Amino acid sequence: MFTLIGVGLGDASDITLKGLNAVQEADIVYLEAYTSFLINSSSEELSKVYKKPVLVADREMVESGEVLQDASNKKVVLLVVGDVFGATTHSDLVVRCHEQGIECRVIHNASIINAVGCCGLQLYRFGQVLSLCFWTETWRPDSWYERLKSNRESGLHTLLLLDIKVKEISNENLARGRKIYEPPRYMKIKEAIDQLLEVERNKKGGAIAEDGSTMAVGVARVGTNTQQVVAGTMLELREVDFGEPLHSLIIAGDIHTCEAEHLQLFRLS
Amino acid sequence: MFTLIGVGLGDASDITLKGLNAVQEADIVYLEAYTSFLINSSSEELSKVYKKPVLVADREMVESGEVLQDASNKKVVLLVVGDVFGATTHSDLVVRCHEQGIECRVIHNASIINAVGCCGLQLYRFGQVLSLCFWTETWRPDSWYERLKSNRESGLHTLLLLDIKVKEISNENLARGRKIYEPPRYMKIKEAIDQLLEVERNKKGGAIAEDGSTMAVGVARVGTNTQQVVAGTMLELREVDFGEPLHSLIIAGDIHTCEAEHLQLFRLS
Repeated sequence: MFTLIGVGLGDASDITLKGLNAVQEADIVYLEAYTSFLINSSSEELSKVYKKPVLVADREMVESGEVLQDASNKKVVLLVVGDVFGATTHSDLVVRCHEQGIECRVIHNASIINAVGCCGLQLYRFGQVLSLCFWTETWRPDSWYERLKSNRESGLHTLLLLDIKVKEISNENLARGRKIYEPPRYMKIKEAIDQLLEVERNKKGGAIAEDGSTMAVGVARVGTNTQQVVAGTMLELREVDFGEPLHSLIIAGDIHTCEAEHLQLFRLS
Repeated sequence: MFTLIGVGLGDASDITLKGLNAVQEADIVYLEAYTSFLINSSSEELSKVYKKPVLVADREMVESGEVLQDASNKKVVLLVVGDVFGATTHSDLVVRCHEQGIECRVIHNASIINAVGCCGLQLYRFGQVLSLCFWTETWRPDSWYERLKSNRESGLHTLLLLDIKVKEISNENLARGRKIYEPPRYMKIKEAIDQLLEVERNKKGGAIAEDGSTMAVGVARVGTNTQQVVAGTMLELREVDFGEPLHSLIIAGDIHTCEAEHLQLFRLS
């Protein structure tokens, strides 16, 4: 039996009773630790609250399917930050379970996809979710631009998920076969805004205002007790210190009256 | 203090530890019971698991702000099925708290918006969420059509939320001032498909195939142990018995290879 359990966004107390029950009945408990990370808890803290050892599963262990190794005759749990189906790799595990005749179940939880409703904009007025990557000197993807433009032209809000780099190996170390991991990096709202404005200034497609006057909401550490939500123009938000990760950015579409009232609570003076 | 708590999608055990803790510390606990309903639990069952009386708050009590009455000097909790910000009315309560100087916090949980990832289609490839209403003889809204078309033209999947009518009063009883509630009604996947096909046949805009050959996924009771997921053409799904509510329908956009593999698990025959 393989159970995928969403652990929500904040700390160890964000697991559901159903999820905790499955953890406590399990023979092996992994925490998936590369598509996101639990803001206020390490695997040690989870272990303490769950009263159960929690092993960290890195990208290799998940993508190779190593986490399924014992699932045909043991109860194996994979804890996933947020909800279960935020990343393609978890869908892939469900498919592999089916192929290998392993019973598979899912226990859901909050993810940024629905918790972003805390920003004051209505969930049913969001278009496609987009992801921004860290640019390198040679790789500066901007395929999100047309989709942002399309959301904006339809008056829809856009949730931008910002890049996370955990356990990455630099090209130099990779080339030399050295398994030395770079320090983790989490894209900040300011970096995201700079990337958006730079692409707009190059493409001039009008997805957002070139001068940074488009309304947006920055959210940091959603679902934790240090959650921060600030509404303002992109230019204003660029100057805000959002502190520790994780950050996300919402580019507003048309703003309805009830949304404007809610946003007002988060406006910069 | 006013705390909005998402209780997830299934039963009383879908609350988070953080949520349960807030419930147990509260002076008054309401369950919001008109924008959705908890599939496998009544307020009595919640009371039993939470070890706390749970009062049902109907539309009047929520929309009038009656639930906030004691929140300036007591700990008041409003339990919301799914996550907190699925309905405009909950945003409105946050704004009112601010106006009345009531401290307000939110504890998130899964909602259909993210749990729909269980259908095998990737969350980041969904466009705007749409809602279908029950038609009456004189009111047949189809403003969702252009938005469905726009999602489909962009190759995006569309989650359709199907109407729920709880504690409605018929026009006749309303006219006569009689507070007699109609039995609750929940739109079925079959009814949704019929509505979609009828509008397509009238408008002929090509949002979906008129002959019902567009791929879709029907999901029922997501997050419960009787969850049902079936993938097929709209015509095929029309014939499937999805059983008890709640039902939702996903109209597929372009289907990527990894999505096709996952969908295959849910195909008919």
